[in-house]
Amino acid sequence: MTTETATTWTKHHILSLETFTPQEYETILQTANSFQDVLSSRTKKVPALQAQVVANLFFEPSTRTRSSFELAAKRLSADTLNFSGSSSSLSKGETIFDTAKTYQAMGANIMVIRHHQAGVPHTIATEMDQLGGQVRVLNAGDGQHEHPSQALLDLFTLYQYLSAESPHQFLQGKKIAIVGDILHSRVARSNIYSLTAMGATVHLAAPPTLLPKAFGGILSDAYQEQLVCHWELEPALTDADFIMTLRLQKERMSEHLLPSLREYHQRFGITRDRVKLAHDSVKILHPGPVNRGVELSSDVMDDPELSLISEQVTNGVAIRMALLYLIGTSGSVTN
Amino acid sequence: MTTETATTWTKHHILSLETFTPQEYETILQTANSFQDVLSSRTKKVPALQAQVVANLFFEPSTRTRSSFELAAKRLSADTLNFSGSSSSLSKGETIFDTAKTYQAMGANIMVIRHHQAGVPHTIATEMDQLGGQVRVLNAGDGQHEHPSQALLDLFTLYQYLSAESPHQFLQGKKIAIVGDILHSRVARSNIYSLTAMGATVHLAAPPTLLPKAFGGILSDAYQEQLVCHWELEPALTDADFIMTLRLQKERMSEHLLPSLREYHQRFGITRDRVKLAHDSVKILHPGPVNRGVELSSDVMDDPELSLISEQVTNGVAIRMALLYLIGTSGSVTN
Amino acid sequence: MTTETATTWTKHHILSLETFTPQEYETILQTANSFQDVLSSRTKKVPALQAQVVANLFFEPSTRTRSSFELAAKRLSADTLNFSGSSSSLSKGETIFDTAKTYQAMGANIMVIRHHQAGVPHTIATEMDQLGGQVRVLNAGDGQHEHPSQALLDLFTLYQYLSAESPHQFLQGKKIAIVGDILHSRVARSNIYSLTAMGATVHLAAPPTLLPKAFGGILSDAYQEQLVCHWELEPALTDADFIMTLRLQKERMSEHLLPSLREYHQRFGITRDRVKLAHDSVKILHPGPVNRGVELSSDVMDDPELSLISEQVTNGVAIRMALLYLIGTSGSVTN
Repeated sequence: MTTETATTWTKHHILSLETFTPQEYETILQTANSFQDVLSSRTKKVPALQAQVVANLFFEPSTRTRSSFELAAKRLSADTLNFSGSSSSLSKGETIFDTAKTYQAMGANIMVIRHHQAGVPHTIATEMDQLGGQVRVLNAGDGQHEHPSQALLDLFTLYQYLSAESPHQFLQGKKIAIVGDILHSRVARSNIYSLTAMGATVHLAAPPTLLPKAFGGILSDAYQEQLVCHWELEPALTDADFIMTLRLQKERMSEHLLPSLREYHQRFGITRDRVKLAHDSVKILHPGPVNRGVELSSDVMDDPELSLISEQVTNGVAIRMALLYLIGTSGSVTN
Repeated sequence: MTTETATTWTKHHILSLETFTPQEYETILQTANSFQDVLSSRTKKVPALQAQVVANLFFEPSTRTRSSFELAAKRLSADTLNFSGSSSSLSKGETIFDTAKTYQAMGANIMVIRHHQAGVPHTIATEMDQLGGQVRVLNAGDGQHEHPSQALLDLFTLYQYLSAESPHQFLQGKKIAIVGDILHSRVARSNIYSLTAMGATVHLAAPPTLLPKAFGGILSDAYQEQLVCHWELEPALTDADFIMTLRLQKERMSEHLLPSLREYHQRFGITRDRVKLAHDSVKILHPGPVNRGVELSSDVMDDPELSLISEQVTNGVAIRMALLYLIGTSGSVTN
Repeated sequence: MTTETATTWTKHHILSLETFTPQEYETILQTANSFQDVLSSRTKKVPALQAQVVANLFFEPSTRTRSSFELAAKRLSADTLNFSGSSSSLSKGETIFDTAKTYQAMGANIMVIRHHQAGVPHTIATEMDQLGGQVRVLNAGDGQHEHPSQALLDLFTLYQYLSAESPHQFLQGKKIAIVGDILHSRVARSNIYSLTAMGATVHLAAPPTLLPKAFGGILSDAYQEQLVCHWELEPALTDADFIMTLRLQKERMSEHLLPSLREYHQRFGITRDRVKLAHDSVKILHPGPVNRGVELSSDVMDDPELSLISEQVTNGVAIRMALLYLIGTSGSVTN
């Protein structure tokens, strides 16, 4: 499959899902599926990115996303270099772009970038293109903008759960609730793009301070009808096929956007009682790490009949292998 | 040797030495011996854990133990993931067990865990077993409880030194002094279990604040006679075959358990004069890092005729290869 | 080439360039040239240091130098262990030499050492020799003393630029300006040794507080005439073939050695106007990271016709492969 897939993939960078087409999502899902098979095999590795260097440039600390990308790169036989902002030379006055250029000059082929400011991966990608276009950039989370690999692993998790029934239009007619701090969530933004493009209807639920009226405007007219905003939890949950919960940052309290974690949980926390509003076969997702007892009650989170959280983490490695593979071999004559 | 050894090893986790049998110690020592040969060879690597992932989860900072496990894993051809508590998502409110589950879901096969609270590796191992038992857990030091790999590398160091003479009962009739902060030492606890099980008599020496009267109770009746407590150094050292010194944590002073480092050294520090009390061929061990001039005088520490400290570090890699290998291949039909 | 080169290389450690001969520089440049070919090939790796362990002991934080050494080691198929001072056991009272001995006992073959005190790599090398001489030491920057690999990658950058014209005496008759905080710069010291030994004339330019009158005394009489000190920028720049700029540490202000960054830039910053004083084909180097608008104006730094900064970073990997290879195989009967 790999040769064929690679020749049909055209994006050099993965920065935002805003313009991804259903065909592109299909390619990613099928590639991830193949790598899932590799991960289930005895060898667990492929030589696809041998001799390539994946630089993980995490200007914002992260454990799980960095480890997931690192493992994905190793499973593809790439060499990895890790950079984390706190121990970096940035304190010495260098710009982010000088740092990226340094890794490019050292021989990095793919840069996986996380930064607390929206747009940094995009700007670095533009700079890299101006340097000759050999370096691929993958956005691993930029401020409150996007987190494409998280939304894609979520999509892959839904796909695995639904594709036996309907391999191509698996999200057609499905209702997905996204609950939590929508306004500040890069995970929500990326998911809204991918889920609506694949045919689902997305219901957002959050308090007004975390979901402004104008929020629906992030989608183009073509998808507007697939996005519904609620300031109460119940209408979003009713008959939902999936509930995606978002991590609540504790900063929201000091910013006076929320009175307390307890009040948030009372109004928007997913409990066993509230789950009953949803479809019988409802499944719950969370990008992690979970604030137990805030976004989700512990019994819901730990119920394997309800929670897909562990599957999300597992799928993260396969999805990231797919993304690194697709951009790492795109446009290359030798692959 | 490897196939045979693996089929006779039954422990999935290595959490505590309390219940290890002489047969199990023998298996570990023989396996470490084989890996010592590998490390002395030109290739230095074996493909034993190829495609396996060893996650080093160090919730308490460590340099030497983490590097030793990392190198052991690489020598076995495993992939490694490093997690250290300080840069982690734990600050974000996730539980330790959620972190462990994340690494399990990502595909970790073996978790090497250090935590400042006793019992954490045990609890994680129990959780992992409930998830299906594919993940092995190795305790790399939990609070003041145990540090099995340190005690086993100590045992291997004694074995190498004595086995030419007596391969099977190498510790029979030997007197071993353990000197220092016994009460708070996970190294001492693990060593007391392994040394007495292998036939040695262990003499503990420490000030009363660091060695309470009831301490002997940690051993079962069968081994009680092999453990002797002293509040003075001299009786422990007299005719000892080996002196194991323990690192003194400076916190003990602020906790009013010790008046000063100088006074500790005056009463319990190992100096050249005091070494004369011991057996002519006495050797000295220390788990490192040493507070020079506190636990040991510098001239004793640096005397290659007396100190086995460097051998301990070298043996640490072989022992950790053996432990990772034994649990990594136990119960697996393919090995 | 490799077998031949290795047999003619005699230095076990690379600590200082003070005594390097033109022949040794030639060997390093030719070896780096071969590795540059490897890096341009499809495989990008050689098995030269397979089974060897390179320990990066960075007692002073660094991003680019550590990553460059790590990548160089991986390209040579070595295993790497990373140690950084801040997360280390040094806070526990161990000496630097005990740390080095620990890595030696664990099996490290090469230690790459950075420390904020001059002479530490040298002292560790001496200790390692006393332990039997199996461990090689490479100075990756020690206080204000030397930074050999940086000066060698600078030399390799000049060599690549000039060798087509004159492969052996490429620096003969060339004028090189070194501008900035000469007094505190380990980069300047190493460069002064290598550039004068290879035939260039070096003109230093700095304010008197950063370039004391006696500074020329660091060179032996044989090279004295090739070193000229200036307290003004213009005479150093006039007709220069290359301008090497040094990073200005902000501490210099609080130490009252400089009134302000702005004043420094006004008097010693390299701007487009000042570049006109130099030779038409002048090229500019900087060890990075650059304080934009201080040592260099941004337009000069980003002008590919003027700046060799990116080439320096690229060449750093090849030079470090050469250095690791030469010391890693020197004196070994099997290579």
